[in-house]
Amino acid sequence: MLGSTHGTLTTDSRRARVIACGEQPGPAVHGRPAEVDDLDVSGRPLYCDVPDLDRFFRPESVAVIGASDAEGRPNTGVTRQLIAWSERVGARLHPVHPSRPSVFGIPCSPSVADLPEQVDLAVLLVADPLPVIEELAEAKVKFAVVFASGFAETGEEGAAAQERLTTAVERSGMRLLGPNTNLNAFERFREDLDGPAIALITQSGHQGRPVFALQELGIRLSHWAPTGNEADLETADFISYFAERPEVGAIACYVEGLKDGRAFLLAADRAARRKVPVVAVKVGRTETGARTAASHTGKLTGADAVVDAAMRQYGVIRVDGLDELQDTATLLARARPPRAEGVVVYSISGGTGAHFADLATEAGLRLPALSQAKQAELHQWIPEYLSVANPVDNGGHPVGDHRGRKIIDAILDDPSVGVLICPVTGPFPPLSDRLVQDLVDAAERTDKLVCVIWGSPVGTEPAYREVLLGSSRVATFRTVANCITAVRAYLDHHRFVSGYRSPFDEAPRTPSPSYRKAQALMRPGQQLSEHSAKQLLRAYGIRVPREQLVTSAAAAVRAAGLVGYPVVMKASGARIAHKTELGLVKIGLTSASQVRDAYRELTDIARYEDVSLDGVLVCQMVERGVEMVVGAGHDELFGPTVTVGLGGVLVEVLNDTAVRVPPFGEEQARDMCAELRGRALFDGVRGRPPADLDALVEVVLRVQRMVLELGDDLAELDINPLMVLPRGQGAVALDALAVCR
Amino acid sequence: MLGSTHGTLTTDSRRARVIACGEQPGPAVHGRPAEVDDLDVSGRPLYCDVPDLDRFFRPESVAVIGASDAEGRPNTGVTRQLIAWSERVGARLHPVHPSRPSVFGIPCSPSVADLPEQVDLAVLLVADPLPVIEELAEAKVKFAVVFASGFAETGEEGAAAQERLTTAVERSGMRLLGPNTNLNAFERFREDLDGPAIALITQSGHQGRPVFALQELGIRLSHWAPTGNEADLETADFISYFAERPEVGAIACYVEGLKDGRAFLLAADRAARRKVPVVAVKVGRTETGARTAASHTGKLTGADAVVDAAMRQYGVIRVDGLDELQDTATLLARARPPRAEGVVVYSISGGTGAHFADLATEAGLRLPALSQAKQAELHQWIPEYLSVANPVDNGGHPVGDHRGRKIIDAILDDPSVGVLICPVTGPFPPLSDRLVQDLVDAAERTDKLVCVIWGSPVGTEPAYREVLLGSSRVATFRTVANCITAVRAYLDHHRFVSGYRSPFDEAPRTPSPSYRKAQALMRPGQQLSEHSAKQLLRAYGIRVPREQLVTSAAAAVRAAGLVGYPVVMKASGARIAHKTELGLVKIGLTSASQVRDAYRELTDIARYEDVSLDGVLVCQMVERGVEMVVGAGHDELFGPTVTVGLGGVLVEVLNDTAVRVPPFGEEQARDMCAELRGRALFDGVRGRPPADLDALVEVVLRVQRMVLELGDDLAELDINPLMVLPRGQGAVALDALAVCR
Repeated sequence: MLGSTHGTLTTDSRRARVIACGEQPGPAVHGRPAEVDDLDVSGRPLYCDVPDLDRFFRPESVAVIGASDAEGRPNTGVTRQLIAWSERVGARLHPVHPSRPSVFGIPCSPSVADLPEQVDLAVLLVADPLPVIEELAEAKVKFAVVFASGFAETGEEGAAAQERLTTAVERSGMRLLGPNTNLNAFERFREDLDGPAIALITQSGHQGRPVFALQELGIRLSHWAPTGNEADLETADFISYFAERPEVGAIACYVEGLKDGRAFLLAADRAARRKVPVVAVKVGRTETGARTAASHTGKLTGADAVVDAAMRQYGVIRVDGLDELQDTATLLARARPPRAEGVVVYSISGGTGAHFADLATEAGLRLPALSQAKQAELHQWIPEYLSVANPVDNGGHPVGDHRGRKIIDAILDDPSVGVLICPVTGPFPPLSDRLVQDLVDAAERTDKLVCVIWGSPVGTEPAYREVLLGSSRVATFRTVANCITAVRAYLDHHRFVSGYRSPFDEAPRTPSPSYRKAQALMRPGQQLSEHSAKQLLRAYGIRVPREQLVTSAAAAVRAAGLVGYPVVMKASGARIAHKTELGLVKIGLTSASQVRDAYRELTDIARYEDVSLDGVLVCQMVERGVEMVVGAGHDELFGPTVTVGLGGVLVEVLNDTAVRVPPFGEEQARDMCAELRGRALFDGVRGRPPADLDALVEVVLRVQRMVLELGDDLAELDINPLMVLPRGQGAVALDALAVCR
Repeated sequence: MLGSTHGTLTTDSRRARVIACGEQPGPAVHGRPAEVDDLDVSGRPLYCDVPDLDRFFRPESVAVIGASDAEGRPNTGVTRQLIAWSERVGARLHPVHPSRPSVFGIPCSPSVADLPEQVDLAVLLVADPLPVIEELAEAKVKFAVVFASGFAETGEEGAAAQERLTTAVERSGMRLLGPNTNLNAFERFREDLDGPAIALITQSGHQGRPVFALQELGIRLSHWAPTGNEADLETADFISYFAERPEVGAIACYVEGLKDGRAFLLAADRAARRKVPVVAVKVGRTETGARTAASHTGKLTGADAVVDAAMRQYGVIRVDGLDELQDTATLLARARPPRAEGVVVYSISGGTGAHFADLATEAGLRLPALSQAKQAELHQWIPEYLSVANPVDNGGHPVGDHRGRKIIDAILDDPSVGVLICPVTGPFPPLSDRLVQDLVDAAERTDKLVCVIWGSPVGTEPAYREVLLGSSRVATFRTVANCITAVRAYLDHHRFVSGYRSPFDEAPRTPSPSYRKAQALMRPGQQLSEHSAKQLLRAYGIRVPREQLVTSAAAAVRAAGLVGYPVVMKASGARIAHKTELGLVKIGLTSASQVRDAYRELTDIARYEDVSLDGVLVCQMVERGVEMVVGAGHDELFGPTVTVGLGGVLVEVLNDTAVRVPPFGEEQARDMCAELRGRALFDGVRGRPPADLDALVEVVLRVQRMVLELGDDLAELDINPLMVLPRGQGAVALDALAVCR
């Protein structure tokens, strides 16, 4: 938890530097430059520049450093491909080699300084790129690509070499792709396809290959950015750039690790504002992260849960397999926004419709029953004994004649319908050929989404290869699961972006009045006593029980009188964990004599257990409510996090928690509570009144404010339990743990 | 819950009849006939006959009733297909038509009585099959197939017609497929494929189509049984039959509903004993079933949870999509039993290996690290800087020469490895063609499982179409998810069958001594008082607190003295629910005066709430443990069920329960507890001692015994809470609800 290196700042340097993206001036950027006031109160950027990569993807002139045409050298093949690529994109290519007069007949420059013109892009095929960087900078080259491997991916020594490369690039003003990247950006893209395209970003060339191959199925790809080790340009830069490109309908990413969590979120935020879907595979579902084991709050959410939450907060669609990435990105790139959220399942068999509807409903798709009027209309063409409520079962025969198209049009004409899905389990050409042709024709004349699941495992049928794959308006799937995943993502994405309000716009930039009070309570490197931790909460307006810290039995009795009977008494000290288990908590004390006895007993136990006390807390006893946990932690990728969970034994046994990465608004705080499996507790079970959910949400937001303002000074915060009282009565933090850095 | 119709018996008829399968004598059966002692103590069968369907699938002579060669009549096409089929299988075909002299040149018989020979199979193309059944019986026809629709699938009237058909068939001694079935059983199967085959059972022709089409990819299919409405022959009959056929490697089923749950389980049991995998799609994931809403225990598990549990108990592999059905059935049919459970991921890219390993591990596959010696061996051919621990990353180049095959063989040679999975993200013919050829060759020379995920979306590449699909030894997948699903099912299946002990062999056949005691407590049609319900538990050896039922304050004080202070007092009566909410429970009473007061208060509240009491219970106070719920219910498909769940608020909020269908043994009872999300509670959290899990398991098994013996006399049983004490101290039923039928 504590060993955070990325995306966080020490207090001293807060407000002094802009981290990660926006930091380098860059050769040219879209929009306004980063400024000091583009930081939130934690010192993290609220704005991310979009690098202008036009000349990277479409340079006018290219230098190839280390070009070769010698038989059998690996660089020879690469040079050949770069020459072919530069011809395709209309760039002038200049080989650079110290000794060759020409390469493949193109005159060679002996060094970068001797290049015949200022080039946009230099491709470095040399084993050690570092010495070349300065030359390139002097030659005012805009972009460099480094293929060489042997950097951070190989261990410490390589990481140090990469750090030197990064420093040189930062100084140069140039932008660099790589090292450890490849030719993917310079592949042959099909130019004959139109409509919205997929832009692809991968951290492994192999993993992008099947998405690239979609072009063979007629799906347009506009770019491929193989980011490699990301010494400079990173996934976030390409997301930002692609989100601004008019030809890009969706961004597909394969991510193994993120260089900077905040930069990624700012890029995702940009894509969300531009309503451009980002679909990502992120490896790491099973990384448990030993770094989180030390902290109690850390244990609540593994790091992958943070990645998952952060992506959802900013609308990034996370998928598992590369086949899902392909199918989901294709659908999202091509399909227009839904006119309605209703899904209709249409098939030539009642069994097929029932089966698909069962799975689709389980996955959360909404299949509304069609109106009586619409059903009557469909029964003009479909026998009365078949069900057309949704799923619509046509029984097969109507597909073979003019009725087939009329049925499809009638379904698509219904205002409650946004998506029509037709599972075709197996090809029976007399029916299925006409069915898919009708679907393709109908899809051309509607802006609603038409999906087909081509269920045949064979996949060489003309109806599939020619008719379905020939249509850019019908979304064709080969598996039930991928269709459901993609359609859910499609509806979720459009719902998300249509209501999107960037949390960065509303993030606090200046400290609240609470901040000064809180600062006075901080004790660097120490765990605060329960009493001090509660004062910290009070500073941020979070309710705590009335309580007094006392150091004698007589003072305890006086305090109990002021606090009001019955009282709770607890040992208080800087490093007491597991108070209850040690017997250091006494509840339900109703008289002065009980208080006096309790004081003695607590101090005796503390002595016996060798626990150092700063006193004993005499606290107001709070009535029963729903016990929750609210905590703050640090994620190495995303910085501060806020967690809410069910309290008591439940948090340990079921790990029923939800996490968010600040900044987030009230809606996300409500979503956190709604995500909990035990959320029904809030409604009141077994005759209990409903809980004050508004108060819980308010506490979550106040904790967020606190962690943003205290930044890394606060290593850990854990309110456990937060007693959420019946509706209208608020929430009270009964105990709190706070650790300062 | 209570309105059970299928698979259960009234008490009067217990032991008097054998339900469902085994009931009809049938023309000929494998194995021993059903006898009266093949019943468990609840009167349900423990044995299921296997119908001899050899002559159904391979008849020597066939009659087609209603055959036609008139242009444009639907029966004409069907007749033509039946003639072609009978020629293929070498059967003599006899058309039957009252007026035609011949059909397609084959002489016609005017009626069944006039058939030239006794036929094995009659195919009925007539709209009303009922009158023909008796004629067929007289002609000693063994099997009939009825295509006509308009029976149970159309509503009440059709159901009545189907019932008449069933009765006629039962009288006839013939076996019948249908009604509402089709030509699927008589399709053209490829005869040129060998090796273990898939046998297919579907309740919808369309839904079987893609499995049938697997033959086009070289995967052998031996049978297709389209069971239609199952007036007689049902899914279970075909599972039993296919499980006995030597050519069948796996049974694939598409099931919309089961006719008889017990028959299905007996058939699955037979398949498990024979080690034949059954893979099933069962529609109904989202059927919530209002019938279960009335009963508290019923609410714990929806009916689909019962189906799911029953399938798992007998090793049936449930999948969702038809594509999963194909991929899983194919793998299970063809692959030999695993030599080890370890999975090795092998790829030409570190990214690909890491990604797949991440998803596979999350799905529960075990990827053991290869030994240092094995890694050293692999590093003979793979550069040192690449990781070969598992996943094995070869970096690409070794695939292009002799090293590729050596690496594969070395991996397969490792004794910890049972499965090698190679994801090929995209075809790069210089590498991938040789890679898949090496995998295919290696797979021919090993009995270990070799899987390839062909990740290219294109699917027309020769390496895929010719090399991979040409091999019956390599399992080829197109999606990551289906590969993982199938490999998990493969390992799970073999683990399951290798340790399988049929619960039917150990099911009780005669009532235990508890049964007589329990019978005396039953009150037909009534809910028992808490006290009686606990006596019922005691009769079955389930511990309850010491308690006495009293009807005066003075008696209460005497009882408390005998039971021992502190005591709990509860109102007792036949129909009291929600005692705690009504204030009808008083806990922690420590003196005679408190007992006296409590008695008065309880009787006052009962009067005020108009609750009729048979007295007040004075109970021993039991120390705290883990609160559980153990209950019994009835499922309309499977009869009695036993449920275990986390008690208290958790059961309502999280529905954390597990269900089983009797008979089941101790291992399944332990699995139930291990399935609970809150199972960590048993280990003892927050310093509590571990719970007496053995005692909980014992209670589950005793409840099973009770529901089997009391049968339908016991409509509902609910122990809530069952307090599971620390290990070695047992479990005590603190409250119980029992409803007699």
